[in-house]
Amino acid sequence: MAKLGELSAAVGGKLLGPPGTDITGVSSLLEAGSGDLAPVDTDKYLGLARDSKAAAFIVDGRIDAGFRRPHIRVAYPLVALNRIIEILGLSRQRPAPGIHLTALVHATAVLAPDVSVGPYCVVAAGVRIGRASALASHVHVEKGVAIGEECEVAPGAVLCEGVTLMNRVRIGAHAVLGRPGFGYVPGPEGPVHLHHVGRVLLEDDVHIGAGSAVDRARYGVTRLSRHVKLDNLVQVGHNCVIGERSMLCGQVGVAGSVRIGIDCLVGGQAGIADHTVIGDRVRVGAQSGVFGVVEADQDLFGTPARARRAAMREQIALRRLAEKDGAAGDSDAP
Amino acid sequence: MAKLGELSAAVGGKLLGPPGTDITGVSSLLEAGSGDLAPVDTDKYLGLARDSKAAAFIVDGRIDAGFRRPHIRVAYPLVALNRIIEILGLSRQRPAPGIHLTALVHATAVLAPDVSVGPYCVVAAGVRIGRASALASHVHVEKGVAIGEECEVAPGAVLCEGVTLMNRVRIGAHAVLGRPGFGYVPGPEGPVHLHHVGRVLLEDDVHIGAGSAVDRARYGVTRLSRHVKLDNLVQVGHNCVIGERSMLCGQVGVAGSVRIGIDCLVGGQAGIADHTVIGDRVRVGAQSGVFGVVEADQDLFGTPARARRAAMREQIALRRLAEKDGAAGDSDAP
Amino acid sequence: MAKLGELSAAVGGKLLGPPGTDITGVSSLLEAGSGDLAPVDTDKYLGLARDSKAAAFIVDGRIDAGFRRPHIRVAYPLVALNRIIEILGLSRQRPAPGIHLTALVHATAVLAPDVSVGPYCVVAAGVRIGRASALASHVHVEKGVAIGEECEVAPGAVLCEGVTLMNRVRIGAHAVLGRPGFGYVPGPEGPVHLHHVGRVLLEDDVHIGAGSAVDRARYGVTRLSRHVKLDNLVQVGHNCVIGERSMLCGQVGVAGSVRIGIDCLVGGQAGIADHTVIGDRVRVGAQSGVFGVVEADQDLFGTPARARRAAMREQIALRRLAEKDGAAGDSDAP
Repeated sequence: MAKLGELSAAVGGKLLGPPGTDITGVSSLLEAGSGDLAPVDTDKYLGLARDSKAAAFIVDGRIDAGFRRPHIRVAYPLVALNRIIEILGLSRQRPAPGIHLTALVHATAVLAPDVSVGPYCVVAAGVRIGRASALASHVHVEKGVAIGEECEVAPGAVLCEGVTLMNRVRIGAHAVLGRPGFGYVPGPEGPVHLHHVGRVLLEDDVHIGAGSAVDRARYGVTRLSRHVKLDNLVQVGHNCVIGERSMLCGQVGVAGSVRIGIDCLVGGQAGIADHTVIGDRVRVGAQSGVFGVVEADQDLFGTPARARRAAMREQIALRRLAEKDGAAGDSDAP
Repeated sequence: MAKLGELSAAVGGKLLGPPGTDITGVSSLLEAGSGDLAPVDTDKYLGLARDSKAAAFIVDGRIDAGFRRPHIRVAYPLVALNRIIEILGLSRQRPAPGIHLTALVHATAVLAPDVSVGPYCVVAAGVRIGRASALASHVHVEKGVAIGEECEVAPGAVLCEGVTLMNRVRIGAHAVLGRPGFGYVPGPEGPVHLHHVGRVLLEDDVHIGAGSAVDRARYGVTRLSRHVKLDNLVQVGHNCVIGERSMLCGQVGVAGSVRIGIDCLVGGQAGIADHTVIGDRVRVGAQSGVFGVVEADQDLFGTPARARRAAMREQIALRRLAEKDGAAGDSDAP
Repeated sequence: MAKLGELSAAVGGKLLGPPGTDITGVSSLLEAGSGDLAPVDTDKYLGLARDSKAAAFIVDGRIDAGFRRPHIRVAYPLVALNRIIEILGLSRQRPAPGIHLTALVHATAVLAPDVSVGPYCVVAAGVRIGRASALASHVHVEKGVAIGEECEVAPGAVLCEGVTLMNRVRIGAHAVLGRPGFGYVPGPEGPVHLHHVGRVLLEDDVHIGAGSAVDRARYGVTRLSRHVKLDNLVQVGHNCVIGERSMLCGQVGVAGSVRIGIDCLVGGQAGIADHTVIGDRVRVGAQSGVFGVVEADQDLFGTPARARRAAMREQIALRRLAEKDGAAGDSDAP
């Protein structure tokens, strides 16, 4: 529990209303109860906010000031709410430092003193883990892997030889990093799997979702640049390079040797063919299929992916055509 | 082994044939051997049944009675066959009650006396597990999770803080329940991940496939209602609510804040965009992409999803158009 | 480190250049440094090879002999490079034989003397594991599973009752083999899950990617024939049969009771509906959706999948139609 005034001060906000209001939780406008603080990050929600049972609100400072209920005005209401959740003690807690009795940490691994290693983890020879990083349970870390500072590795994640995590990287449960890529050549008796001797590099602030897989390079490196975010069940093939702040939604599949620029957004279940090159700030619609070379600042949709506007026009044209055909078919009837 | 007459009695069937026939196994009509019982759940299979090597059959009571080989007639032949598989001892066995020596169960966890916890499981503080529930090996259960009665949790499943399973829930291997959703807002240095303080609720008889992920709500709850079934590798985003008996086939992706009604069937690899609202008894074809508001009782197909009939008409119209173009192209040739 | 002459001899190549050249690593043409050997498997790369910093090259013997830098000529350069990677000690090492102290191996399991079982594995009663096979950490092997010779099972893989691996099979991290299929029938209170009493058989040289799932048959068997390769996050339903050397790329979904012929290639994220029958040597494009009966030697694309050429013609016809519509729309403007 905290006072509204303290919370406002903590996030550098402008308070409109009684500073002594007790805040016990956070919630959405619709679900909020009497002790809750709720966010209003767009003026579309002002109506909902007027009717909400929330005790107070955290409001985008650009929203028109006609709103009368107790609220904190800030520039980034959802970022400020994040901080308030921490102050209220509602965020998930970092595990305590220490190596669980059942964790198997090789004698040659080098761990900072405040690292947390959970039960049934296996940490192999030569692994390095930096300050304030934490492995949950059943994590498997192979020989020579390097993990930076303040990283979080969820249960069951697998980090194979040749993987490097820089700082503040988060790895989802059962994610698999650094397995050899899906590369085969025809051999005399059947496909021959090629050795993959390359690496995987996840730079600062990369997040990987549950069950996602990032394959290691054949030679060289598969690289996810600073602040790349992957949702759950995403596949990234060998030798891909993804630019800063690009986001891949759930179940996206990226084949081998793909280049993706910075600040791209790839919608759920989209697929990107091998050797595709995508420029900066490209948006790929959900379920789209991309190949070839895509220039910067495009908004794509469909399989094969084309400009969203063109894809929409094609949809409309096709619908009209089918209706005309249908009408013609009807008029043909005896 | 059992006698055909006993099996018929056990499932309340009507026996046509010698009750003393020995039944040692069950199989399909094509694969059956001389001791097997095989199902005939549609009259399309009567021909196959006449030629089958099975010793006897279990037949839908609505099928015409001209069939001469030994058989049991019942209303739900496949449900009855399920029971017979159990009687014959062919179904997978529940593990014996008890906590494996290597399972780490926190002192404040409350487990019913006949619960089974397999090797290398980790059960955190305050967890509650009800009568006859079983965790296989390597299961990770976080603080405060509640598991009802007769639940089955397969190897490597991860149940994060805030997850509740009601009764007879089954969780597939490596499924991940309750991880924070994929919610980011732009921040000064890159995307900022929003804390997700909400929950996941799986009601009675929910089944989750292997490797599937159900994210916890930002506030509030992600809810799968009674008898919802998810196949393998399905992704359900934060704050979704799925209605009773709806089924999501393999690799379906459901983005955040989606509402799905009761008795829906979503085909494999279909995707549902965030904030979509789907009415009751809607069928979504495989690989379709759904967004917006879908009224009840629709049958959808395609990306973007439209009435299946309209989608089919469009396919036909397009094919004709391409053939005409092709013909025109040919006639244009010199 | 090795001498170029030794490496050439080891792979039966023809050496052009000084045999005493020291080789310390392998790399791609672009990334190679001064001690590296780099592959030239197509004459398109000869220009890159001329400018590469590599010390030497391994070149397809069919490529025109005008290339002047030190190189080894062989019939299968990538297969030969695989061997060279092993000679240089750069390939990932097999784990040492032996059963880790923390591995729980049932007294009735039968393991060849040189089997390796990693930490926190669980191997149940009656399991058989052949010569030179290795389980990594956290692997779960249920009652009666049979594993052949020289198999590799990655961390966290789950092998359920009824699974058989023949020889040289590789199972990716967190793959789940042999869970009951997604088979339900309507019951009085909701969908009833059917018992699946069948098996999964992976023949010689089958490879399964990380996080993939292969369900066991209802009765009978789900069978992946010799040299079938699955990439990551692939789903194969109950009772499927996949022919020799067929390859399924990342995130492919195969529903129940599908037959796939030999030497097929299924592109990433493609889906195959239940009871589909696909002939030999069929190519299915990425994201395509296949159903019905597909004759041998087809090249398919789209949803629903049709001949790639027809699908391409349709794309072109549709684009033209939309442009015409757009032009008409413009001329209609006042």
